[in-house]
Amino acid sequence: MQNIKTIEGGVCAAKGFRAGGIWCGIKASPHKRDLALIYSETACVSAAVFTTNRVKAAPVIVTQEHCKDARIRAVIANSGNANACTGREGLVSARRMASLIANEFAIPVRNVAVASTGVIGIPLPIAAIEAEISALADSIRADVSGNESTLEAIMTTDTRKKSSAVEINVHGHPVRIGAIVKGSGMVHPNMATMLCFITTDAAIEQSALSVALKDAVRSSFNRLSIDGVTSTNDMVIVMANGRAENQKIALDNEYFAIFSTALRSLCVELVRQAAQDGEGATKLIVVTITGARDEETAEALAKSVASSNLVKTAAFGADANWGRVVCALGYAGVSFEPDHVNIAFSSKKGSISVCKNGQTIPFSEENAKNILLEDEIEINISIGNGPSTVTVWGCDFSYDYVKINGDYRT
Amino acid sequence: MQNIKTIEGGVCAAKGFRAGGIWCGIKASPHKRDLALIYSETACVSAAVFTTNRVKAAPVIVTQEHCKDARIRAVIANSGNANACTGREGLVSARRMASLIANEFAIPVRNVAVASTGVIGIPLPIAAIEAEISALADSIRADVSGNESTLEAIMTTDTRKKSSAVEINVHGHPVRIGAIVKGSGMVHPNMATMLCFITTDAAIEQSALSVALKDAVRSSFNRLSIDGVTSTNDMVIVMANGRAENQKIALDNEYFAIFSTALRSLCVELVRQAAQDGEGATKLIVVTITGARDEETAEALAKSVASSNLVKTAAFGADANWGRVVCALGYAGVSFEPDHVNIAFSSKKGSISVCKNGQTIPFSEENAKNILLEDEIEINISIGNGPSTVTVWGCDFSYDYVKINGDYRT
Repeated sequence: MQNIKTIEGGVCAAKGFRAGGIWCGIKASPHKRDLALIYSETACVSAAVFTTNRVKAAPVIVTQEHCKDARIRAVIANSGNANACTGREGLVSARRMASLIANEFAIPVRNVAVASTGVIGIPLPIAAIEAEISALADSIRADVSGNESTLEAIMTTDTRKKSSAVEINVHGHPVRIGAIVKGSGMVHPNMATMLCFITTDAAIEQSALSVALKDAVRSSFNRLSIDGVTSTNDMVIVMANGRAENQKIALDNEYFAIFSTALRSLCVELVRQAAQDGEGATKLIVVTITGARDEETAEALAKSVASSNLVKTAAFGADANWGRVVCALGYAGVSFEPDHVNIAFSSKKGSISVCKNGQTIPFSEENAKNILLEDEIEINISIGNGPSTVTVWGCDFSYDYVKINGDYRT
Repeated sequence: MQNIKTIEGGVCAAKGFRAGGIWCGIKASPHKRDLALIYSETACVSAAVFTTNRVKAAPVIVTQEHCKDARIRAVIANSGNANACTGREGLVSARRMASLIANEFAIPVRNVAVASTGVIGIPLPIAAIEAEISALADSIRADVSGNESTLEAIMTTDTRKKSSAVEINVHGHPVRIGAIVKGSGMVHPNMATMLCFITTDAAIEQSALSVALKDAVRSSFNRLSIDGVTSTNDMVIVMANGRAENQKIALDNEYFAIFSTALRSLCVELVRQAAQDGEGATKLIVVTITGARDEETAEALAKSVASSNLVKTAAFGADANWGRVVCALGYAGVSFEPDHVNIAFSSKKGSISVCKNGQTIPFSEENAKNILLEDEIEINISIGNGPSTVTVWGCDFSYDYVKINGDYRT
């Protein structure tokens, strides 16, 4: 297997990418950055995946248009306001964000992506963004900003900065892929995902980049569930500027698998970080279905378990209530043989079998509790002898989820 | 419109039905009844609807078999143990429950329905039930028990006794329909419903009873969502013994509409009671979609809103966060025009428009909060000029939901 090396730098790890974040006044507190920029010094090919919510925020509509050229090389993103359900004015504001950056760097406006995250239905204070756009651009030019401040500027209820970067070797050339991600609520696998911006210095055909992204998202972001809510604003964008000067990666050459695997592992790492930082989450839940007849069946079952409010509250209480796991399998909408279900709970404290052939087996509640008290727990479910295995990531459901969302706007 | 009179007596309101509940030792505390019986002195026709969960509890499997004859006249139900995921032994126990009652009253075993509710995956203590079966039967014979104790005996995390009864007039004869219901968690409209037992002294063709029940369930229990979880044990059974001696109700006569309307209104009343008693619920949420092109569209949209964890937590916080309502519409999986969406929040404190044509409109946050602080709130959403209107019932999501479910078994 190709060696994938974890490196520092996040979204700035790849050659020729700069990024920064400032406070422009969308968030009330000047200690909270709210406007971010990611920029490639040279032209890029790009690929993107968007929310499947029928109500699309203005920045999603604008960025979808711009992405048709697949030449995105800059992303401007704000937090504190989603610019969703804001009508014609919202669209004008989203376009304005893109053109402000295009003007600053003298690049075509269609090379700029726009993203917003925050409260829905409040007009975006575009004047605040306009007033600070030069400061934002200057921070990039002077290289005084970086991955950390960019991350800060896209966070809403996120409590952790979520980023990662890897380096691979393509025919003797080091190639870097880095990313930042935000999102801890309104996250559910029926859609693209939350906001995720990926940069790479790989030289790669656009078609290969597009396939690699779709594949990576399918087995990472689309298998993450925090609260069952699919947002209006989600997007994942990857930009590749070729600065690594590697042999060009294409769908029909050997380098594609190397790149694709690295991108997927990067996305899985981000998903793990996002699930751990789910609103009010106290633990990461990793649900794996094995022995399914096909991937669709495995995925439907795993998602149903990871999304169950009853499984999530049981995990919060470290309660080995496997009946709720079986129940969630049962309403997943796919067929399976209940009598062939085996369930085990695992963590670094060990593993315990709790259900065999769909029935209760004797187990030590004390051991089970001990295992489930860890901050990363696995629910491993085998449902037969089929060839397919799927893993889905989620988090538990705590008092704090209710607290955070009971009065988010005030 | 036919007059539907609310009467006392719940499941015992109809002529010739007796019911009772005792403690047999499934629940730890002798102060909590756990075994219930509903019995008609004379033969019945019956109809039933069951869970759509692929994992069906043993009592569901047995009762489905017995219901094929459509002659159910007795229901034995226990709480404290779901007898689900209990394998062959569980089936033996469920059959035993039915036959114990059949023996006591010298009726065919296939005239007895069995229901269980409680924790999944623990063997049912059938010996405890056997030991107390005569006491249960005697309490019915002596008529010392009744609606209240029956209700108590089917409750788990329910905090309120949920029952209702109505009287209608069929060609000069008073006809009564009464019911009890349990369920406050694991309740979601993708399935039949929780446990609900309905008795009526109507003389009615089985075919008419069956159609009336399906129709009533479709627009009541199947439009109730508490926590998005579809249980393994749910069932609704209606038994009709004809003791009212009315002109026989049939699909092709005028009495059908009278009976059907009354049954539906009874079920809606029970659904409202159940939603109000949702686990940890502090308020009833009534979501109505108007102007939809068809009923399926309206129902999908209304359910998506009522099931959204973010809408539910906002309701708990009395936060007029209508953006979450729009977001939930957007991922409902049906098409509609976001620009035609109007949203208003209402309660007995008044009504307030918060979104017009998919966009924010100015409104008083203080008034909105005041309206949303009530214990019954309406979310009224018009999505166009279509002919269809659907109402769905749900509840808010509080700290107590997490508390109740974080450690249910201990």
